[in-house]
Amino acid sequence: MRILLCEANISEGRDEAVIGAVREAILAGNTVKMIDFNSDQDHNRAVFTYLGDPEAVLAATKRLAAKAVELIDMTRHHGSHPRMGAVDVVPFVPVAGVETSEAVAMAKDFGRFMGERGVPVYYYEDAATAPHRKSLVDIRKGEYEALEEKMKQPEWVPDEGPREFVPRSGALVTGVRFPLVAFNVNLRTTDLEVANQIAKAVRFLNGGFRFVRAIGLRLADKDMVQVSMNLINFTKTPIPRVMEAVRAEAARYGVAVAGAELVGPVPLLALEEVVRHYLQVHDFSVDQIIEKNLLP
Amino acid sequence: MRILLCEANISEGRDEAVIGAVREAILAGNTVKMIDFNSDQDHNRAVFTYLGDPEAVLAATKRLAAKAVELIDMTRHHGSHPRMGAVDVVPFVPVAGVETSEAVAMAKDFGRFMGERGVPVYYYEDAATAPHRKSLVDIRKGEYEALEEKMKQPEWVPDEGPREFVPRSGALVTGVRFPLVAFNVNLRTTDLEVANQIAKAVRFLNGGFRFVRAIGLRLADKDMVQVSMNLINFTKTPIPRVMEAVRAEAARYGVAVAGAELVGPVPLLALEEVVRHYLQVHDFSVDQIIEKNLLP
Repeated sequence: MRILLCEANISEGRDEAVIGAVREAILAGNTVKMIDFNSDQDHNRAVFTYLGDPEAVLAATKRLAAKAVELIDMTRHHGSHPRMGAVDVVPFVPVAGVETSEAVAMAKDFGRFMGERGVPVYYYEDAATAPHRKSLVDIRKGEYEALEEKMKQPEWVPDEGPREFVPRSGALVTGVRFPLVAFNVNLRTTDLEVANQIAKAVRFLNGGFRFVRAIGLRLADKDMVQVSMNLINFTKTPIPRVMEAVRAEAARYGVAVAGAELVGPVPLLALEEVVRHYLQVHDFSVDQIIEKNLLP
Repeated sequence: MRILLCEANISEGRDEAVIGAVREAILAGNTVKMIDFNSDQDHNRAVFTYLGDPEAVLAATKRLAAKAVELIDMTRHHGSHPRMGAVDVVPFVPVAGVETSEAVAMAKDFGRFMGERGVPVYYYEDAATAPHRKSLVDIRKGEYEALEEKMKQPEWVPDEGPREFVPRSGALVTGVRFPLVAFNVNLRTTDLEVANQIAKAVRFLNGGFRFVRAIGLRLADKDMVQVSMNLINFTKTPIPRVMEAVRAEAARYGVAVAGAELVGPVPLLALEEVVRHYLQVHDFSVDQIIEKNLLP
């Protein structure tokens, strides 16, 4: 079983005809499965999340992007969400059975395809061609309006496509990121400082786990505080290890864990280590799960 | 998503032509997925495990059974495994999205189908029509050789089909059982008595959990003992609750858990409570798992 997921962001959240045409382009041939869609009139942006066989996802993404640059004119785009192109950002996420290197090859195939069609393309995250291009925030800084000047700087020459500003399409950012696990732990205290100290203890920024981002938050409606985390590589920094570190740090302050949240979609593989760790089934494999036999 | 599993046992483990024909009957139309197959010459028995949409599994099971009773003659059957019919025992197992009552209706549809084709049928486990018919061991006691006399007793009148012994087909047992989780916990001691005491503490038989069967075993190759368990209803007696009970009992003897084993296929739903219990994600649902979107 090989599954690639794509989360394509386009700069159109108002015109239903355009959104519908792009959606149709993705689903043409019925080879990928749409698992989430949202559009926002204020952001003037739509996000399509779909998955399937990697080759099918790549083909669907090409159809989507070709249709979107045909129909969207960035010279007339206004919206509150940061953006720099008609097809703004397209992360590929290897969910199962796909190596990061394979996903990067797919992102670059897609990037060349769009470059050849006259769209300047930047690679980000695991597909980045330089350290300063890894973060979407840095690439997109200044947004569409600053792009013409930005592209003249040597460090912002596009990775694919024309080197000059293309007013109609703007620029496209594509790349690969690991599936992210959003994991929040709620604590039986109203003392935000406790959550902040634990966040510091577990996050990479302050010496914690390499693949953990964390902040402390107040949960006003619950009379609790929360350690809100993103686990950006659950195979190398697994959920149980983070959970137990949070629990141990909380115990220093005499604070108990009240509960936790796994927010949004979770890759099946992220649960493998939960079973291995807590049930001590050292060789447990998600391949043992009956339903896995029915996956394509 | 609705998944029914069937584990059909036929009394032929030697004649490849017969086994192949039965296998073809199951897979005709390619509507179910075979996930396991084994046959044994000494037992003279084959077991087909397949799953899919409940209606497809029922149809495949009818094709299988019709073909097997056509080809297998019990008057000439010899084998070391207990048996009483050409199609010996056919449990339906509701894996996901299927209520036990629905699975029982399917087992009875199958039973009537075979009854009409001249095969005496007994319902067992969750499809049993009387308490003394719940256990396969009781129904099959005396095996094929005792069946003619057994069927004359009022308490062993078949549930479907002819009331007289049918030498060629023998009788068929079908019914419904919950997916079983085989869970073994290994202990850092060679003292079998510790494993036996823990088995007694957690199993139904001696006052433990309602849906746990357990025995103590010696693991000679590992210098350890094991509490070997079958969890026969993981939704009502979830894995983590059993694990923690075993751990607590072991601690009474100063013995630690060295590891554990989940043997064979595990239903996805059995992991839901593992995440909820240990990560304290009280509202975790297996519907959050990305791959679930790709299931039929």
